[in-house]
Amino acid sequence: MKKKIRIIVDAMGGDFAPHNEVEGGLLALQASKSNDINLDIIYIGDSSKIEPIVSSSSLYDEFSEHITIVAAKEIVAMHDDPIQALKTKKESSMVKGIQLLKDGGADGYISAGNTGATLTIATMILGRIEGVSRPTIGAFLPTSQKKPVLLLDVGATIDCHSRYLFEYAIMGSIYSKAIQGIDKPSIGLLNVGEEDTKGGAERVDAYKQLQESSMNFFGNVEGGDVLLGKTDVVVTDGFSGNCILKFAEGFPKMFAELIPQYVCKSSDRGTDMNVVVPVLKDMLSGLNAEEYGGVPLLGVKGTVIIGHGNSTPRTIMMMIFSAVTAIEKEVDKKIEAELKKK
Amino acid sequence: MKKKIRIIVDAMGGDFAPHNEVEGGLLALQASKSNDINLDIIYIGDSSKIEPIVSSSSLYDEFSEHITIVAAKEIVAMHDDPIQALKTKKESSMVKGIQLLKDGGADGYISAGNTGATLTIATMILGRIEGVSRPTIGAFLPTSQKKPVLLLDVGATIDCHSRYLFEYAIMGSIYSKAIQGIDKPSIGLLNVGEEDTKGGAERVDAYKQLQESSMNFFGNVEGGDVLLGKTDVVVTDGFSGNCILKFAEGFPKMFAELIPQYVCKSSDRGTDMNVVVPVLKDMLSGLNAEEYGGVPLLGVKGTVIIGHGNSTPRTIMMMIFSAVTAIEKEVDKKIEAELKKK
Repeated sequence: MKKKIRIIVDAMGGDFAPHNEVEGGLLALQASKSNDINLDIIYIGDSSKIEPIVSSSSLYDEFSEHITIVAAKEIVAMHDDPIQALKTKKESSMVKGIQLLKDGGADGYISAGNTGATLTIATMILGRIEGVSRPTIGAFLPTSQKKPVLLLDVGATIDCHSRYLFEYAIMGSIYSKAIQGIDKPSIGLLNVGEEDTKGGAERVDAYKQLQESSMNFFGNVEGGDVLLGKTDVVVTDGFSGNCILKFAEGFPKMFAELIPQYVCKSSDRGTDMNVVVPVLKDMLSGLNAEEYGGVPLLGVKGTVIIGHGNSTPRTIMMMIFSAVTAIEKEVDKKIEAELKKK
Repeated sequence: MKKKIRIIVDAMGGDFAPHNEVEGGLLALQASKSNDINLDIIYIGDSSKIEPIVSSSSLYDEFSEHITIVAAKEIVAMHDDPIQALKTKKESSMVKGIQLLKDGGADGYISAGNTGATLTIATMILGRIEGVSRPTIGAFLPTSQKKPVLLLDVGATIDCHSRYLFEYAIMGSIYSKAIQGIDKPSIGLLNVGEEDTKGGAERVDAYKQLQESSMNFFGNVEGGDVLLGKTDVVVTDGFSGNCILKFAEGFPKMFAELIPQYVCKSSDRGTDMNVVVPVLKDMLSGLNAEEYGGVPLLGVKGTVIIGHGNSTPRTIMMMIFSAVTAIEKEVDKKIEAELKKK
């Protein structure tokens, strides 16, 4: 029997909580069977709401032994201030869930709740891995190649320091290898030009550090290279990374708003938008980070995966499997080992 | 008779120089007639190459009095270092052209050549408008609304200072009003969240300055708001602006590479990609900045419009008209007047 992996699901995070969270956990249990994963799901949140969804599921009988419900009375809301939430909502599913992870009650934690709060609370409770200056959040974006690109940092830290960029590269490299199975992921440093003199002192210094490292450093990449999949990993400061991620997520929305205008235009020229729309949707679907099973919080002591508020049950399932893979591949231990060397 | 407006066209900039540049100038002359613009075009570059294209044009006879060719022996190449180019290529179309503008030989200058070199050479030769800390390059991006958004800075200055951001807002506001005819353009400050505490000290300070100004300041906008046209103008540091602009330009390329894959997929399900592709191209066409007639260099003493290296004759024409409008609306005088107040 494979070693048991226990994932805490924050049942109260997300816009459709606890429904999507509970359903996602059940889907993960179902899928774990055929994938030879010995999975336990620990739902944390309002038991009175979680219980009925779990027990009414057709999957309940088969997986009841793999399900635990831990009660938490409070909820960290999407607009809650992270520090305030940590201080005043000790009974929330988020604070209690992350504390449970810290105390060894589980191996990983996933949440589709408040990203900033998850970042802050996880960093404060779990602590940083030795050698990590700043934990980072990475996100997968689609590319024209057959694989997504891992962009980080996407907003954990605004400041741009060469050391941070260097650490993001190490953490991204390890995560990309673990999740995507790429042996030596290529690393691009996001910049305004290819030359190693570009982008200001911090990026110039990061370029040098990356070049001298044992990583598969490609060099500078520009904004236009990200979607073309020029490298497996792209590192940048959290400000520009956040802008790019959200900008990318704005595309499907722009298209959704444009389509009605094109329906009129197209009927003039006889184009059937019923043909066009599904293809467009398909092509744009990858732009939602959740397609790739949430985004990892890297650099804290423990496995934490964060999802969009609007995560579907399928996304929650994917997040659980991202956590499982990160645990199996010992991503945090590898980060510690790599950063200790430097 | 309306006052004459003389535009210098750098005939040697751009990947298809001098052909597209010369053709674009001729198209502009043709269009000027019906638009009641008293336009003169001054081509600068290798006369032996410019002359045959001009004289073989069917438009030549009609507009010959409005065409001047000024000889320049050298070319600033796309990969040339800006400072080096300024020092060593004094006989280039770029250095001579911008010097001619400075000396009063013309009212505006357009080039599809090396953007960095144009920025540096124009700033050094023309000088900054009084009150301008850093000249800025703005770019129009499409939105789901019926009008594009002006994003600036897109790469002139990497550093983020509140004063720069404030000045970009003033310059962007004036340019947007002049070119788009929007009375009080709304200004968004690009940030990682809506709250006025986000984005680090410089952006927090810029927020305050903008809020206290007489501009139509909307507040912070996020990456996802840009394409939705939440504001008419979006200001940010040149690093993130450059990343976003190039990222946006990467989209049509990604789609172009994805389409063949979808052709296969779609034929399985009977989708006619011949229907889909033109609609997609149409929807994505706005993502190329050149559709909007190049990007303005704002904050220097004189009217300078920069275009992509791959500018078509039509784009060159649009750049010429952007310059004409900026001159007619006295954009640089308005910038000076506004910034003197502060």
